[in-house]
Amino acid sequence: MAFVTEDNITDLAVKRWATAHSPRTAELMSVLVRHIHDYSREVALTTEEWMAAVDWLTEVGKISTDKRQEFILASDVFGLSTLVVQMNNRFPAPATPATVLGPFYIDGSPPVPFGFDMSDGVDGTPLFITGTLTDTVGTPIAGATLDVWQADATGTYEAQYADLDEARLRAKYSTRSDGTYCVRTIAPIGYTIPMDGPVGRLISATDISAYRPAHVHCLFEAPGYHRLITHLFRYGTDYLDTDVVFGVKDELVVSFVEHPAGMGPDGRHVDEPFLVARYDFVLQALRTDRL
Amino acid sequence: MAFVTEDNITDLAVKRWATAHSPRTAELMSVLVRHIHDYSREVALTTEEWMAAVDWLTEVGKISTDKRQEFILASDVFGLSTLVVQMNNRFPAPATPATVLGPFYIDGSPPVPFGFDMSDGVDGTPLFITGTLTDTVGTPIAGATLDVWQADATGTYEAQYADLDEARLRAKYSTRSDGTYCVRTIAPIGYTIPMDGPVGRLISATDISAYRPAHVHCLFEAPGYHRLITHLFRYGTDYLDTDVVFGVKDELVVSFVEHPAGMGPDGRHVDEPFLVARYDFVLQALRTDRL
Repeated sequence: MAFVTEDNITDLAVKRWATAHSPRTAELMSVLVRHIHDYSREVALTTEEWMAAVDWLTEVGKISTDKRQEFILASDVFGLSTLVVQMNNRFPAPATPATVLGPFYIDGSPPVPFGFDMSDGVDGTPLFITGTLTDTVGTPIAGATLDVWQADATGTYEAQYADLDEARLRAKYSTRSDGTYCVRTIAPIGYTIPMDGPVGRLISATDISAYRPAHVHCLFEAPGYHRLITHLFRYGTDYLDTDVVFGVKDELVVSFVEHPAGMGPDGRHVDEPFLVARYDFVLQALRTDRL
Repeated sequence: MAFVTEDNITDLAVKRWATAHSPRTAELMSVLVRHIHDYSREVALTTEEWMAAVDWLTEVGKISTDKRQEFILASDVFGLSTLVVQMNNRFPAPATPATVLGPFYIDGSPPVPFGFDMSDGVDGTPLFITGTLTDTVGTPIAGATLDVWQADATGTYEAQYADLDEARLRAKYSTRSDGTYCVRTIAPIGYTIPMDGPVGRLISATDISAYRPAHVHCLFEAPGYHRLITHLFRYGTDYLDTDVVFGVKDELVVSFVEHPAGMGPDGRHVDEPFLVARYDFVLQALRTDRL
């Protein structure tokens, strides 16, 4: 009999997980086991650290709910979410780059018309986001859906509030026949990720800034095109170069241009000064080989 | 401005986590982030696989309770628990080797005398485990505590039953002045790890045997010595070479010798045939440099 030793345990475990019935699962699991072992050897993990990791992971699971996904938050702050987004969205310019979904997306936002004010009843500086949606050669894409969501002036998403009666700062727009869209909302502000859980506690043990720069989430879907999950960031805002979830890309930073009270880009009057972000999104067609 | 790209995201994330205030945390986190990224690149992790991993981890957290630790179970079946035990217990022979604690240990078992039957009221073949506890040069260690726990004839631990009134198949023995100890229990059997959770589901997707070979858990504590967490395995039993948690070591396999009804090793009469496992444990003194 020859049982486990410090020298053979990794090979034994890797070989065992390579017996998964699906070849892809076999690859995912055996490479995972090897990395977990290599990591533990590289840092000479102690029993106490191993137990602390077990406790931390358990706490991350326990605090997660339908409305709060602390493992996604962990993935975000480790840069893993951004890496996975990048690897799975290698679309060449001029296609608009993707960025992280984040933990606060709520499916099933209400369909609303061009220029609808999704900030109804929420305080903030009026902001219009408007422009066109085209394919990579400039042809307008009509009838695409644009799911938009963002935090309020306290940095809080609908998903972080206890049950609300109606959608708050989220809505589903459509592009018109000429590919144009128009979102009315309020200017987002920078905010910290939730710091009251195990991910926040870990961040607090470092010099990492817990802030995200001011941004609005956008998700485009149109038949025949790759789904685009992205953000728009406000040009010149704080935390752009320290975004705690590594979400910022040059191409996604846009100026919020100040306008006095008057006609908005949707053709209706606005009673107070407002901001306009003009942004033309470009979708990558399906069947195009990824880079 | 130069924000994240697929090429720079890993370096950015590693550098950021290296700002942890404790040098050890900085090492643990930055190396962890690098391995997570390297793994994801190596397998070209898809968005769907990433989401499946988030869901799986969440389920592992959710199913864990005070009595069931599914993350420890995951660590066990990945061979990580055994690796950590090995790295942190590099004691030379003749010290008894350590093995995994497992997820079913309950602290605070009742102190019992030499030869006490910890299987009282539980069906099974009587088994005595008896021998000496010494240091590495053979000097008896008196007054050490020996915490023993095991599964019943259905492969179930006390921790897996709903609230019981008293300790079941677990007890805390002491060594006598000559270093001898004597446990009376029932013969353990092989059993499967809990298969009704996310770890079991993963195991079921492979050819991995879900069984553990028949064993009894032993935990020794004595002032001046390293704590020893180990098992004794029954010689010749099934699953020794496929233990799902990689716990078996040559030195921990012991014969359960059959005896007819008559005097037991504690000097008292046994009404039915019984088994005796003779095993001499050896503790490593503190202050001895680890290998």
